[in-house]
Amino acid sequence: MTDTTPPPVAIIMGSQSDWETMKNAADTLEALDIAYEARIVSAHRTPDRLVRFAKGARDEGFQVIIAGAGGAAHLPGMCAAMTPLPVFGVPVQSKALSGQDSLLSIVQMPAGIPVGTLAIGKAGAINAALLAAAVLALGDEDLADRLDDWREQQTVSVAEYPVDEA
Amino acid sequence: MTDTTPPPVAIIMGSQSDWETMKNAADTLEALDIAYEARIVSAHRTPDRLVRFAKGARDEGFQVIIAGAGGAAHLPGMCAAMTPLPVFGVPVQSKALSGQDSLLSIVQMPAGIPVGTLAIGKAGAINAALLAAAVLALGDEDLADRLDDWREQQTVSVAEYPVDEA
Amino acid sequence: MTDTTPPPVAIIMGSQSDWETMKNAADTLEALDIAYEARIVSAHRTPDRLVRFAKGARDEGFQVIIAGAGGAAHLPGMCAAMTPLPVFGVPVQSKALSGQDSLLSIVQMPAGIPVGTLAIGKAGAINAALLAAAVLALGDEDLADRLDDWREQQTVSVAEYPVDEA
Amino acid sequence: MTDTTPPPVAIIMGSQSDWETMKNAADTLEALDIAYEARIVSAHRTPDRLVRFAKGARDEGFQVIIAGAGGAAHLPGMCAAMTPLPVFGVPVQSKALSGQDSLLSIVQMPAGIPVGTLAIGKAGAINAALLAAAVLALGDEDLADRLDDWREQQTVSVAEYPVDEA
Amino acid sequence: MTDTTPPPVAIIMGSQSDWETMKNAADTLEALDIAYEARIVSAHRTPDRLVRFAKGARDEGFQVIIAGAGGAAHLPGMCAAMTPLPVFGVPVQSKALSGQDSLLSIVQMPAGIPVGTLAIGKAGAINAALLAAAVLALGDEDLADRLDDWREQQTVSVAEYPVDEA
Amino acid sequence: MTDTTPPPVAIIMGSQSDWETMKNAADTLEALDIAYEARIVSAHRTPDRLVRFAKGARDEGFQVIIAGAGGAAHLPGMCAAMTPLPVFGVPVQSKALSGQDSLLSIVQMPAGIPVGTLAIGKAGAINAALLAAAVLALGDEDLADRLDDWREQQTVSVAEYPVDEA
Amino acid sequence: MTDTTPPPVAIIMGSQSDWETMKNAADTLEALDIAYEARIVSAHRTPDRLVRFAKGARDEGFQVIIAGAGGAAHLPGMCAAMTPLPVFGVPVQSKALSGQDSLLSIVQMPAGIPVGTLAIGKAGAINAALLAAAVLALGDEDLADRLDDWREQQTVSVAEYPVDEA
Amino acid sequence: MTDTTPPPVAIIMGSQSDWETMKNAADTLEALDIAYEARIVSAHRTPDRLVRFAKGARDEGFQVIIAGAGGAAHLPGMCAAMTPLPVFGVPVQSKALSGQDSLLSIVQMPAGIPVGTLAIGKAGAINAALLAAAVLALGDEDLADRLDDWREQQTVSVAEYPVDEA
Repeated sequence: MTDTTPPPVAIIMGSQSDWETMKNAADTLEALDIAYEARIVSAHRTPDRLVRFAKGARDEGFQVIIAGAGGAAHLPGMCAAMTPLPVFGVPVQSKALSGQDSLLSIVQMPAGIPVGTLAIGKAGAINAALLAAAVLALGDEDLADRLDDWREQQTVSVAEYPVDEA
Repeated sequence: MTDTTPPPVAIIMGSQSDWETMKNAADTLEALDIAYEARIVSAHRTPDRLVRFAKGARDEGFQVIIAGAGGAAHLPGMCAAMTPLPVFGVPVQSKALSGQDSLLSIVQMPAGIPVGTLAIGKAGAINAALLAAAVLALGDEDLADRLDDWREQQTVSVAEYPVDEA
Repeated sequence: MTDTTPPPVAIIMGSQSDWETMKNAADTLEALDIAYEARIVSAHRTPDRLVRFAKGARDEGFQVIIAGAGGAAHLPGMCAAMTPLPVFGVPVQSKALSGQDSLLSIVQMPAGIPVGTLAIGKAGAINAALLAAAVLALGDEDLADRLDDWREQQTVSVAEYPVDEA
Repeated sequence: MTDTTPPPVAIIMGSQSDWETMKNAADTLEALDIAYEARIVSAHRTPDRLVRFAKGARDEGFQVIIAGAGGAAHLPGMCAAMTPLPVFGVPVQSKALSGQDSLLSIVQMPAGIPVGTLAIGKAGAINAALLAAAVLALGDEDLADRLDDWREQQTVSVAEYPVDEA
Repeated sequence: MTDTTPPPVAIIMGSQSDWETMKNAADTLEALDIAYEARIVSAHRTPDRLVRFAKGARDEGFQVIIAGAGGAAHLPGMCAAMTPLPVFGVPVQSKALSGQDSLLSIVQMPAGIPVGTLAIGKAGAINAALLAAAVLALGDEDLADRLDDWREQQTVSVAEYPVDEA
Repeated sequence: MTDTTPPPVAIIMGSQSDWETMKNAADTLEALDIAYEARIVSAHRTPDRLVRFAKGARDEGFQVIIAGAGGAAHLPGMCAAMTPLPVFGVPVQSKALSGQDSLLSIVQMPAGIPVGTLAIGKAGAINAALLAAAVLALGDEDLADRLDDWREQQTVSVAEYPVDEA
Repeated sequence: MTDTTPPPVAIIMGSQSDWETMKNAADTLEALDIAYEARIVSAHRTPDRLVRFAKGARDEGFQVIIAGAGGAAHLPGMCAAMTPLPVFGVPVQSKALSGQDSLLSIVQMPAGIPVGTLAIGKAGAINAALLAAAVLALGDEDLADRLDDWREQQTVSVAEYPVDEA
Repeated sequence: MTDTTPPPVAIIMGSQSDWETMKNAADTLEALDIAYEARIVSAHRTPDRLVRFAKGARDEGFQVIIAGAGGAAHLPGMCAAMTPLPVFGVPVQSKALSGQDSLLSIVQMPAGIPVGTLAIGKAGAINAALLAAAVLALGDEDLADRLDDWREQQTVSVAEYPVDEA
């Protein structure tokens, strides 16, 4: 976690095992110098914690919530049900169904409660951070500049020609 | 609803539109003379109602909960997270994905919080009622007899030969 | 379209036929008194228009882009590749594959270019508008109040009990 | 197996190879101090044994049946066809289709014969045991207390923050 | 049914509603002048009838069994478990999952008990009859000739050019 | 290959790499003392060989054809198009799609040309041999006895209780 | 069919019922003034016709083959196995599986025999014609100009704004 | 790359990591003595490069474009939107969904902009090269002969009988 107070982004996840995926969101936020706080909030095993977190998130000062979960992934949607803040969901790759269950459980929300869903796994975690950055950049010109730089750097770092690897 | 107090079975569903499916659970319970109460509890649009219902269900006297929902169907799993009662989930057939999203969102629960999941749609609703009956029959010999009769009747009503239909 | 200038939200879609779905985003924005502009931008048939739109979107004053497309749905991702603004994607229900192709084409973006993806079809279009509202509300207290009211109204409008319908 | 007589739970499975998965159900029952008996009953290779087991299960004193199988998994449904006891099905992860075949073969039962289906694999086996416990707890206050304790312990054991692992 | 005694082919199905599909098998057998008997045998609702039928099928004089069922379709596999006769399975198109559940429940049999599975729906029913004919023709030269004629007729009836239809 | 002449069963496969799977069919036939011949016949790379084989199969003395292939698996269906003999198809597990492509390419034959399809992979190969045996046993009492013995042996070899494995 | 001799494009399809889809390829070729011939060639019901057509296609003067088929769609791949000409495959939408079977049966060809596959259904048929045009345009400047015009016309015909429809 | 100028085939791919797959296209072209140029062109990270490449491809002298990408694979379709040259798409196998997302994102193009799609992964890359060769052979008799030889060689290299491997 960075030391900015209060951090604008909360990264929540259903269990310790999701951290391997969600750490990529944290790393990306750090690369953009955006403060965040990472917590474990299990919709199923700690429902009270979920209610407390989601209902209090705006008052705690969070502006964007990134929520990762796998299987019957209810965390992003239930969090979105209890906060007006934008919630971005990351489907964690599950064992048997490779995250197809995670994806559908997160993205197929009914009308009324939105979850902006990213790709399954690591790419989704990175992109959730970038999307949070894009949202925060709307009200933060410095961040907008940093994000522009990050994107420009990404573009120039793409090689022109493929190379054989040992 | 029947007039027994308190009813042992709660049928909850995410929206009025699920009633067309879940009514089949109600009708089946009635055929077995089991009292129930049907309520709309939306995990996403009425999360407080969900918390209140799930946490209070055992004290209200319910013994089994049947929960139906479609799409990113979080109701059965979130209910199971907040009650020790057995929860049976019915995946309601969704528009675009025909209930595949509903099914995976309900059945793929992580270890620790179980939802006994039935088939997609009407058959699942009927079977949720029959499974509730089987559970209640463990402690109710009269109901066990009624369920045996119902099953026997089902068996004898299967014709021996198919017939052409106009 | 409403008369505010410049509108903060752009709704783009791949073809006229997507409007039946995307109109639900427009209607939802109107209910929240958020100005928007709706345009047809086909990634495949009008790639120059796409480049012009996406590269100019921030300078035009847009803050959030809602992009709907079906089948091999490239519009949201390609738009996100050319603007730093947050892009929310709506998978339009396709004929043969019911939007499974649209969903995967939109949500499975590689690390680096995010698209916040909503549900397939009408619910997704409504939720894209609500997510845009949640983002804009971070910098607009009046809108935050309107969104809170909208959500509260949604909650209280859920009936307690299901009713049989003729 | 524990030494209580007669055990209230039967764990049946289609083959020795399913035991790696189903052992998790057994371990969970032991943690809750619930007696069980585990047997191999192959619907396809030992149909007579299946008929004998299923028809005699209630008279043997079983109250709940947990049935695990993979691929064209007929064991849970066929067992449910021949006993009025509640049957909970565990889809064992199959090689080619990762348990999608097991899941659909178990959960998509026609109206009239219910199988409460859990998640694919280990999580499903654990949850089948927990669901059996929830059912038995309806008539056993001591078990209800033990299950409440187990669930409470599960909740408090969830860490607040994720930690990096070596 | 034709009047030959005993008929070499049994067509069994899980319910009257499957007859609409399975009648195509019957019609095809009639076109090839092969006697058959059609019966309703529900694996789930009439398990005793299933055991009786399957165990007695060879002694009744049947040589090939065609079994159609939908959803969690256990009839073909359970029949094959109790008879050494060749069993051909027809996945009946189901409502929610269009027969994908029926197909996987029938075709993914474990090693040891085979079911020769045909296509979902009407084409599968017709082809089950043709496959039964091919099997019976191995020991019946007259039938082999009739089947050759049928196939030849099928070939010559394919038009060379497509025509516009009103 | 066994030394009986002419062998009643042909095992054909699309490539050498399919032999790892199809060898299980050969081993099963050997266990039942049924002669066979195994050949590589690629529908795509050796179409002339396919035509020659399929058209000549009956005259060569074959009675049943087992055909295994993966991916866009055309071998079983094309073979069935050119021989009146019963053809049983084995979907070989493919790399990217785990045999789902193989399965659908084999089983979804149009009305008129049947392929009796077995499970994906090794189980399917074994079962194709058992189904061939069931067909041949209709005209060979000795084989019928051997098949009965094989099945009986399979039944008695199923242990009553699962055992922990090191 | 147009009157140019010999036509450079052959449109083949598995049955008359595919014409409703494949006619869109024909119409598109006509719009580009490209001659074609449309024939019914069933891989399964008329295998000899398939062999004759595919082996003779280059000598007949065809340069590109468009092949449409549904279900276990073997026509495009088998045609490609017997001609060095480029073959473009159109998956016709099937009844139960909506063309997912057709798509996989056509696109998942093994290394060595390519089929360039288009989208399921009408869009795929139109695009097969456009792809054939792009190929032929490499050696026909007039056609290249016509195709450029067609594409330009397609671009300019996309409206800027969506309109409500009655 | 070979030294012919200008090369008729461009192989483009979304990232260096796709080269492992796409190198198979390059190797196949080399085996047929067809010159090519391989470039990395990321639709998402280098959209300007994509526009420049696609719009200039015909003038650069390319005749056929082979484009490989994974996940939400927009490269082939976006390239086809900006060039009249034939574009052949190769779905690279993705991590979570094994290339099902890549396949649908490439093949399900809307009417108007075609991409001839090959199989997922290595086989698709090889076949894209062979299809490019078939197209180029229409205007190059020497290449037509080389391709005929390559195909003949492929045919004769198929062994007649499978062999056990250590």
